[in-house]
Amino acid sequence: MNANPATLLQQTAQLSESVTRPIPGSRKIYVPGSRPDLRVPMREIAQTRTPTVFGGEDNPPVTVYDTSGPYTDPEARIDLAAGLPPLRARWIDERGDTVELPALTSEFGRAREQDPKLDAVRFPNRRLPRRARPGANVTQMHYARRGIITPEMEFVAIRENQRLEIVRDAGLLSQHAGESFGASIPKVITPEFVRDEIARGRAILPCNINHPESEPMIIGRNFLTKINANIGNSAVSSGIAEEVEKLVWAIRWGADTVMDLSTGRHIHETREWIIRNSPVPIGTVPIYQALEKVDGRAEELSWEIFRDTLVEQAEQGVDYFTIHAGVLLRYIPLTARRVTGIVSRGGSIMAKWCLAHHRENFLYTHFEEICEIMKAYDVAFSLGDGLRPGSIADANDAAQFAELETLGELTKIAWKHDVQVMIEGPGHVPMQLIRENVDRQLRECGEAPFYTLGPLTTDIAPGYDHITSAIGAAMIGWFGTAMLCYVTPKEHLGLPNRQDVRDGIMAYKIAAHAADLAKGHPGAQVRDNALSKARFEFRWEDQFHLGLDPEKAREFHDETLPKEAHKLAHFCSMCGPHFCSMKITQDVRDYAAAQGVDERTALELGMAEKSEQFRRQGGRVYQAG
Amino acid sequence: MNANPATLLQQTAQLSESVTRPIPGSRKIYVPGSRPDLRVPMREIAQTRTPTVFGGEDNPPVTVYDTSGPYTDPEARIDLAAGLPPLRARWIDERGDTVELPALTSEFGRAREQDPKLDAVRFPNRRLPRRARPGANVTQMHYARRGIITPEMEFVAIRENQRLEIVRDAGLLSQHAGESFGASIPKVITPEFVRDEIARGRAILPCNINHPESEPMIIGRNFLTKINANIGNSAVSSGIAEEVEKLVWAIRWGADTVMDLSTGRHIHETREWIIRNSPVPIGTVPIYQALEKVDGRAEELSWEIFRDTLVEQAEQGVDYFTIHAGVLLRYIPLTARRVTGIVSRGGSIMAKWCLAHHRENFLYTHFEEICEIMKAYDVAFSLGDGLRPGSIADANDAAQFAELETLGELTKIAWKHDVQVMIEGPGHVPMQLIRENVDRQLRECGEAPFYTLGPLTTDIAPGYDHITSAIGAAMIGWFGTAMLCYVTPKEHLGLPNRQDVRDGIMAYKIAAHAADLAKGHPGAQVRDNALSKARFEFRWEDQFHLGLDPEKAREFHDETLPKEAHKLAHFCSMCGPHFCSMKITQDVRDYAAAQGVDERTALELGMAEKSEQFRRQGGRVYQAG
Repeated sequence: MNANPATLLQQTAQLSESVTRPIPGSRKIYVPGSRPDLRVPMREIAQTRTPTVFGGEDNPPVTVYDTSGPYTDPEARIDLAAGLPPLRARWIDERGDTVELPALTSEFGRAREQDPKLDAVRFPNRRLPRRARPGANVTQMHYARRGIITPEMEFVAIRENQRLEIVRDAGLLSQHAGESFGASIPKVITPEFVRDEIARGRAILPCNINHPESEPMIIGRNFLTKINANIGNSAVSSGIAEEVEKLVWAIRWGADTVMDLSTGRHIHETREWIIRNSPVPIGTVPIYQALEKVDGRAEELSWEIFRDTLVEQAEQGVDYFTIHAGVLLRYIPLTARRVTGIVSRGGSIMAKWCLAHHRENFLYTHFEEICEIMKAYDVAFSLGDGLRPGSIADANDAAQFAELETLGELTKIAWKHDVQVMIEGPGHVPMQLIRENVDRQLRECGEAPFYTLGPLTTDIAPGYDHITSAIGAAMIGWFGTAMLCYVTPKEHLGLPNRQDVRDGIMAYKIAAHAADLAKGHPGAQVRDNALSKARFEFRWEDQFHLGLDPEKAREFHDETLPKEAHKLAHFCSMCGPHFCSMKITQDVRDYAAAQGVDERTALELGMAEKSEQFRRQGGRVYQAG
Repeated sequence: MNANPATLLQQTAQLSESVTRPIPGSRKIYVPGSRPDLRVPMREIAQTRTPTVFGGEDNPPVTVYDTSGPYTDPEARIDLAAGLPPLRARWIDERGDTVELPALTSEFGRAREQDPKLDAVRFPNRRLPRRARPGANVTQMHYARRGIITPEMEFVAIRENQRLEIVRDAGLLSQHAGESFGASIPKVITPEFVRDEIARGRAILPCNINHPESEPMIIGRNFLTKINANIGNSAVSSGIAEEVEKLVWAIRWGADTVMDLSTGRHIHETREWIIRNSPVPIGTVPIYQALEKVDGRAEELSWEIFRDTLVEQAEQGVDYFTIHAGVLLRYIPLTARRVTGIVSRGGSIMAKWCLAHHRENFLYTHFEEICEIMKAYDVAFSLGDGLRPGSIADANDAAQFAELETLGELTKIAWKHDVQVMIEGPGHVPMQLIRENVDRQLRECGEAPFYTLGPLTTDIAPGYDHITSAIGAAMIGWFGTAMLCYVTPKEHLGLPNRQDVRDGIMAYKIAAHAADLAKGHPGAQVRDNALSKARFEFRWEDQFHLGLDPEKAREFHDETLPKEAHKLAHFCSMCGPHFCSMKITQDVRDYAAAQGVDERTALELGMAEKSEQFRRQGGRVYQAG
């Protein structure tokens, strides 16, 4: 709208080289869909040839899921003040069920718009907001239920497959059988499957019509396990440019969605900068901003203020809202004897409001009106677990499960409106109580995607909660959680810096992938197999490049063996040049081969079959020798 | 024996302050046993009073298991060249079944003894080795099976209980019910229970009669889950003083046993320095040194050389030997088609020997003779899994499980000789295949303690394998593994430095504790509950002190809120002073209290009962309000 002259922020909003440099050994590729403007980004990791001593064959490139957006594309021209290209704009427009509004709808939004004091921090090139035509419903769930496969759904199908057909044709798809606890993961993800999963509420595709810059992604237990990273400044902390940099940093390492939990000044403006530059869905907790609007006095919150905040954020393009509508007045006393009471900020805000007014949570009483707003912009619900346990002691208690029942009830109401829903989960849970959380959630909430924070499996390691929680996250992901909200090493102690964000994301990429392997997700083991083969063959560079963090792997290797030559050496620092178990294994292979054991098809064979063949041929080799 | 003048090494062998300074907020205590020379070290963490706003009560100190030995005792006088006091010497002597030998038995040991070139690196104050009287068996298992409760067993019983009676009397023992998968964990650990577990082979108490400096500890699934840390220099790396410092560093952070995997020069001398200064059991892989003796030419290994190495190390005081006696000639070809072949160094050494000679593994053919040596010094077997998988692809394959069967057969032979045994396990295993490893091991090996390396649950994160493996370690510990061998972030990339050792141990202390919580080990939740309460009440100092790594926790907190005042502030950096969920929870408590909900006994009540009471009283509160 108003195009005020470029401000200092606009001129200085630059990303550091460390968040935009190409990822070592990888190149950005785009897999075309059924229409020219449907190009799905992926990352292709090149591999070198196997050294002659190990057989000398070629090793195919490995395609991996890529969340980093245009920032890792050398071709892309990045201008934070311009924002990313609105790749979904035409798809949204073509559907013809939305209108461009003449101005922002929310009072607060308009007030910020007019305030000249904010010119210095305002995002310049804002487009007018869109909203559903009167009576229209623009959610992906609504389309799905009417049998429509949207470009977003096709995009997701291509993206989830990660060019698996190439691996399958190459006969490299062999992996262990999984245990999926009742999930229904197909061998190939089709657009129709995506549509069907969204239609039945088992998956969500968060894509606000006012966030056309986002690359479609899906959250559901029958798809790859996703992770979320939280950013956001607080009273004590960071500025706008810093938050955008954090966003780009987070998606570089693999965050599938990012939640902006800002609570400081300029929440509105910070959010605009983040969304305009984000290729991943952005989630928020609107009650945080609503609370700012009443100067932190929870009792002064009202439906009207909250409603205006929802519209304000929906028109900026937030893709999912955490809403604590399950914190009911009658549940609050159930927390009185907990060791750590109510630890969810949103939950405690609503609890305070309920107690102050002796009235039922207005998010609950106005839930259908909230649905009306959600479906006008396609904002998905992330139903917040305001009463989640904040300690091992409080896990799986009456308050937590009472709220979960209510979230199940609200899920059905949202679905009645064709509004997409996921359910937030704990928190702090010892290992033996994790499974119950998933089983109950699936039952109570009709298989709506579960989105859990960890859970932490012990409370005794402040400073290492990315690890205490990665253990719980891997397990709960295996059992059926669709998205894992990361925890950084700073949890409970302070605000994460860049390194903490990286460490938290790495721990969660590990947990999510371990879950995919355990569920037997098709192709999940391809990258493990490729990296292990590279490791066995001392293809150090390939091993680094195939890892989740090539820079860290190289750095660690170089601490012990700095010389470039060692990247090719057929030994490593663990055993030294004098003796090497890998070399001996090669002797075993040569021996076995000499006895006529055919090497070629090892990987093509299924594990069990392979083992059997091992036994037979192994036996023969022995007698032959 | 020979008291050569103090060498440079002896004069300079000093520990840095960072490995000996007192642990913040803790004091060393000794719990007396039935005799004056039986004093069990523990660490007591003090707590401050609850702030008045939260109730103002006293918080009892928390007792935790302490592996750090005299090094964290301000009273202790540390002299590395003198070694630690031989606290078990009298107990061993009293049994009257051992003799002091006139000299070292092993040829190699004697040769090193005479070599003047080694004076500079030799440990000075060595005592003469002891051995069982002819025909005697000095293993703890032998005593246990004859109904004898040794001081070592009593020491262990006191140590495992961690003064739980105090907690029980204070009514602070409430915790979640566990799932122990068939373990038999008693409410109170008695010396008789310890004896019985050792007698039936379900637990081992590794304590070589030539390592009287060690503080008795036990490894078994019905006791606290233990962790091992590996140290040791390689061809490429560190010196003697550095290794001793690493040992002290490792036990400071919680290593229950330490394996010396040195492969470089001066293995013999390094080991002497380590054992003389180690309060924890030391394990080794004798085949590594035997290989050095034949200049790395595996095919030149012989039973005679290996035998001499066993005796050499047994007389130095090594508490357990990893012996790869299950790598049978007929199993070797089963590994030919693996993605990563044989990754165990010991396994590949024996494989190479078997292939070179077309003969059966001499560790297998001479197993009974090995047992004779073990029982003369009470060295425990750690039966090595030389064919463990080195990648997700190779997990649970024919080679791995064939070897496990043989380890079960060898376990029974060792038990026939009353020799203590534990079984080593993988390695790399995806989550859905972990349980099978424990179930098979318990069945095949008659519940002999399982000792696993990780397992890593994915191969795609080089640089983060302390995390990929902590996930598997926590789960396999829960299922029944007795000791977890740590993995550091440098795994597969290089040799761990101090920081890597600390990170690896922390990840494994977390995994082991998470397992104890999940098994429902009595009192396992006490520390979690105390830390959570401190967290809720903003007792920052207590939260730091109760954590596994007080220094790291404080450091992280100070990054965001450096000022001392903030250690007392009733808010934290996450929400800022403006708004705080903990404060709101306190309002909820005050409200509930005002309605007559009695706070006092919350923690005394079992979870289920508590929940029920919550519901009832919660309801009443609501109507009353």
